[in-house]
Parts: sequence; structure tokens; C-alpha cells
Amino acid sequence: MWGTMLYGPRDVRSEERPDPTIIEPTDAIIRLVATCVCGSDLWPYRGIDPVTEPRPMGHEYVGIVEEVGSAVKTIKPGQFVVGSFFASDNTCEICRAGYQSSCINRQPGAPTGAQAEYARIPLADGTLVATPDLPPDDLIPSLLAASDVLGTGWFGAVAAEVGPGKTVAVVGDGAVGLLAVLAARQLGAERIIAMSRYPQRQQLALEFGATDIVPERGDAGVARIKELTGGLGAHSVVEAVGTQEAMMQAIRATRPGGHVGFVGVLHDVTIPGQEYFFSHVHLHGGPAPVRRFLPELIDLIWQRTINPGKVFDLELPLAQVAEGYRAMDERRAIKALLWP
Amino acid sequence: MWGTMLYGPRDVRSEERPDPTIIEPTDAIIRLVATCVCGSDLWPYRGIDPVTEPRPMGHEYVGIVEEVGSAVKTIKPGQFVVGSFFASDNTCEICRAGYQSSCINRQPGAPTGAQAEYARIPLADGTLVATPDLPPDDLIPSLLAASDVLGTGWFGAVAAEVGPGKTVAVVGDGAVGLLAVLAARQLGAERIIAMSRYPQRQQLALEFGATDIVPERGDAGVARIKELTGGLGAHSVVEAVGTQEAMMQAIRATRPGGHVGFVGVLHDVTIPGQEYFFSHVHLHGGPAPVRRFLPELIDLIWQRTINPGKVFDLELPLAQVAEGYRAMDERRAIKALLWP
Repeated sequence: MWGTMLYGPRDVRSEERPDPTIIEPTDAIIRLVATCVCGSDLWPYRGIDPVTEPRPMGHEYVGIVEEVGSAVKTIKPGQFVVGSFFASDNTCEICRAGYQSSCINRQPGAPTGAQAEYARIPLADGTLVATPDLPPDDLIPSLLAASDVLGTGWFGAVAAEVGPGKTVAVVGDGAVGLLAVLAARQLGAERIIAMSRYPQRQQLALEFGATDIVPERGDAGVARIKELTGGLGAHSVVEAVGTQEAMMQAIRATRPGGHVGFVGVLHDVTIPGQEYFFSHVHLHGGPAPVRRFLPELIDLIWQRTINPGKVFDLELPLAQVAEGYRAMDERRAIKALLWP
Repeated sequence: MWGTMLYGPRDVRSEERPDPTIIEPTDAIIRLVATCVCGSDLWPYRGIDPVTEPRPMGHEYVGIVEEVGSAVKTIKPGQFVVGSFFASDNTCEICRAGYQSSCINRQPGAPTGAQAEYARIPLADGTLVATPDLPPDDLIPSLLAASDVLGTGWFGAVAAEVGPGKTVAVVGDGAVGLLAVLAARQLGAERIIAMSRYPQRQQLALEFGATDIVPERGDAGVARIKELTGGLGAHSVVEAVGTQEAMMQAIRATRPGGHVGFVGVLHDVTIPGQEYFFSHVHLHGGPAPVRRFLPELIDLIWQRTINPGKVFDLELPLAQVAEGYRAMDERRAIKALLWP
């Protein structure tokens, strides 16, 4: 099959790879219908996360089940399924508490790489969620978004305790931040402040339900949020970047007793204890347990209540995956969808 | 009047001080019935927080109202009252959300010092809570505990989302940690693990409701908590120390999706972002909004349901305040009560 390998900084290649096969009896093999490039793929692509040997890329996917291992009970060949970046058994105590991305049997979601024609998915019964039927083509981008960026933005909003009557600020205008805006709208927030300086992203934030746009960042961004909230700060802030500046901006923009939901992977971030102590802010986040939200998100997409697929502003054949990485790296695209 | 002044490291003196008077129309003057030395008083006493000029000490108190300012409506002379370490209006949006210790009009709770015969209390109507009647003498230590250490331990347990069916671990066996054990018991925790290596404190933890004692600290303490919880960690951990080691011990002893409630003032602590990100642990804490809990705590004490006054294992006349500091500094006492 064709798959995608990262050889080193900015050296990503579409190449012939061995077809994946069932290894564990709990595995499934899926034929990818759509996949995409993740913001987190850019960390190794840019050389910030070191790449010591060639590695298969991609962890967001929707596809058709081709084959299942002997221990797979509920997932069947022919189903259209959505998974996510961690495989989980969905039965352990941690999964049952809704933290499937910390499952005690957690594994990479697509160890053979999902930017490919086929992928092996571990723990298929726990990891994959089937759609009610084969979806119409126009729903595929949205179902693909559910696999990671929607599920992650949604978790950010849930972790920030977004709800009716609340003012929410979103730090970060990548696909995850934009979909946190969509989630905040669905979860009933009264006011949603998107922090973005790019006109195209501001526009999408407004389409997804933002009520205010704040282009300022850092201290100026915090001051603007305070101004908009009677000096108190937002009730809920979603941090969808993962840098020191963004995390501090999120904590400082939140009122005492309010909640920060953080979903940007915290690279080289440290939280200063004394300032945080006196902030009175709740912190929660981490790798999104997308599996917790998939049934609900698939339903909202199936009913055409939400259209998160709009974050894909570039579509390419899988063979042109390198151009997808380049376009996202150069901020020419918010998110690149790949058709195998 | 007699009051307590800190002149420098380990130089605390009982001395003649001016009687406090009403300054703002929202002030009250109270005659102290009992006061005490706080673990946080030891930071400047030990010179860890610098003392640049002599300062009045004490912020925990119960007393009788002597006089009120012209704008005080609900607090009356003659009432027995309990306050805490921050004065708050109890009417602003932050107070109404339960974060009185971040009140937008927050002030020091007893700016003239509560280790004294009299004290001026700002924002009396918002800050003070009157008991149903003059209390019997034997309830006074418990009512005094409500003023800070009980309210703080209680907030730690609430911030850690302690509740029925949950396993709770408490890091720190000072008065606050011990009263977090008591709070966890009252809030219905199934299992309460007190982390303590001192036999007298272990004993009090067991009296307050601990079901297990873990003397190990740091990595060994974390390993022991994991062993006791099927490898997962506790649902709720209260951090009642405020050091780097204690905070990391708390985060690492908590299961994914679990909650750390931290009430030890975080001195020179930094939380490493990447480790914290992957922990999936909720963090909440800060200076306890004791005012939120006072009505409930006074009621539990009045009904003799709880006896938090047991944390006072040394009682002294106010004039011997210096011995109270020494005894706590040298760990000869958990907490020293002072009778004016």
C-alpha cells in the first residue's frame, strides 16, 4: 500500500509500505476513506520533536473495516468507523470514568500510520465507533474532524466547564481552537470570545458561533478579555496552543473560581506555583479522551447539527501529503484533508 | 492593648499596642476570645518570607463584637463571631460564586493583627459570621479552628472533589492536612489515606477518620498510594504542604481524571507542563474561601458533629505567644492556641 513516512525535519514522503495485517486478536484492519495532517504532526516535521528514525505518520482517520481479529466482537467488516489517536479498551476503570486516552491498556491509535491506504487499529471494539450507516460523501470531512480536532476542542470546552450563561474565551485559532468555539456554542455558552489575528480564521470562528474576536495576545489579550468581562475575566478559557505564553494568557484571562481547559500539548511549559495559587483557577486538560465524545459527536454530525469539516480548507490526494504538511507549516492552510 | 509583633527572624514579641478603632464605616472592633499561631506565620518567623519592618501578627480569631461602624447592618455588638484571614464583601460576583478570598474588595482579615486583645475587622457584614448564641467554653477551640485550618482543610477536600465511594489521600499532616482528613470523612469518602510519619499526628488522623496511614514520602509515597488503589492512584488528593515535593507527590498519586485540591501556599513551586499534561489530573486550590464554608462548619461544631479543636495541642496565655511560635517551629506542637 501507499503510506506516509517522516524521515527528518521537513522530509515527509509518500511511499510504498507493507500492507498492515492483524497482529493481536483484538485488532482490526481498516481501509482509509479519509485522513489528514494534525497540528501535532508539525512538531516532528519542524524538528522540534527529534526524529531519530523514519516513522509512519498520521493518527486521524475514518474508514471501512476490512478484517477483524478473532477476539473482536462488536466491530464488523463493512462498517464505516471513526477512531482516534489512542486505542483504548473502553472497559477499564479509567475508561469508564471517561479518560480513554489514559486507558490502562492504551496504545497508539494507528501504529502503522493513518496517512495511508490501510491501517491496523488495536483494541478495535474499544477504539472504533461505527456510524449508523455508510455516510453520504459530504459528511466525511466532518466525521474525520471528530477523530481528533473536534473531539479535542470539545474536550477543551468540557474541561473548561463551558455551559449556559458563561463567557468563554478560546486561546488559539488553529483547527482545535476553532472547534472549541463550535463546542462552546453547542454547550450553550452565552458569549464566546475567539482570540485570533487571522481574518480567515476569525471568519470561521464567527461561523462556528464566536460572539467576539480579540486579536491581541499575551498581556494585551488578557487586558482585553478583562475589559469585556467587567474586569473579572472569563468563566471558562480553552487553551489550544501549548506554549508558555498561551498557557499564562489562559490562566490570567480566567476569573477566580473559573476554569481553564487545556488541550495544546504543553511543550516546554512550566506553571509558576505562587501565581497559580493565588489565581483560584481550575486547571484540567491533556490528551483528549476523544472516544468519550465520539457517539455524541457522530450523532450531531449525522443530524447535520454541526459542520466541523469546514476546518479543512485544503484537500489533496494522499500521494501529495508533503504539500499538505508544507501548506500547514507555512500557515497557508488551517488543516489539510488527504484522500487515499 | 497587648498585641503581637514580629521584628525579624525568630523575634516575635508580645507588647503594648494602640487599641484599634473604627476607620471605615464597614469596620467592626472585636474583643478576641481566642486566637492562635498559623503554619503560615512560620514562613516570616523563619525568615523565608522577608520581614522588612515590624509587623502585627495573627489572622485566625473568634471574639465578641465591641463596636461596629455606621454602615454595618447585620453584625451587632455583643455577638460571638468567627472570621477568617481575608475580609470580603460577600456580595460581589466572585464572592457569590464562592471565592470570597478573591473578593474584588478583598482586604487582610485582621489588619491590626489577631494575636491581640482587640482587632479591627474590615467589611464586617461580609466577613464575620455570628454563632447562634454565646458558645460554651469547650466549643471555642473548634470555632477558632473553623476560622482558618478547618476551613482550609475543608476547601482542600472540596477542591479535590471528595465524595462518597472515593479514595482520598492527604499529603501533609499539619493542622490543615489533619482537618482535610476530617473533612473527607464528613464529605463521605470511602477510604482516607493520611500521609504522615509522626505517631501523634497519625493518631489524630485516625481519630478524624483516616482509614490508612502511609509514612512514606515522595516517590515511595506515590508507589504506596498506587499499591493501595489497584495501581491507579487515588480519586482525590489534598495537598496541604506547599513544597515542590508535596505538589508532585499529590499529582503523581492521583489517577487520570482524578482531582488534586491544593491548599499549601506554593512557595518556589513550578509545575512541569508536559508531565502535568499527560497526568489528566484536575488541579484546583489556592487561599481557601473560608467564608463560603463558615455557616456550615459552625453548625457542625454547634451540633457537636465534629471536633476540629483537637488540633490544638498547646494552650498558652497570649503574653507567651513567643513560646507558641517556638513550639510549632520545633514541631513540639501541631498548633498553639492563645488565650488573650
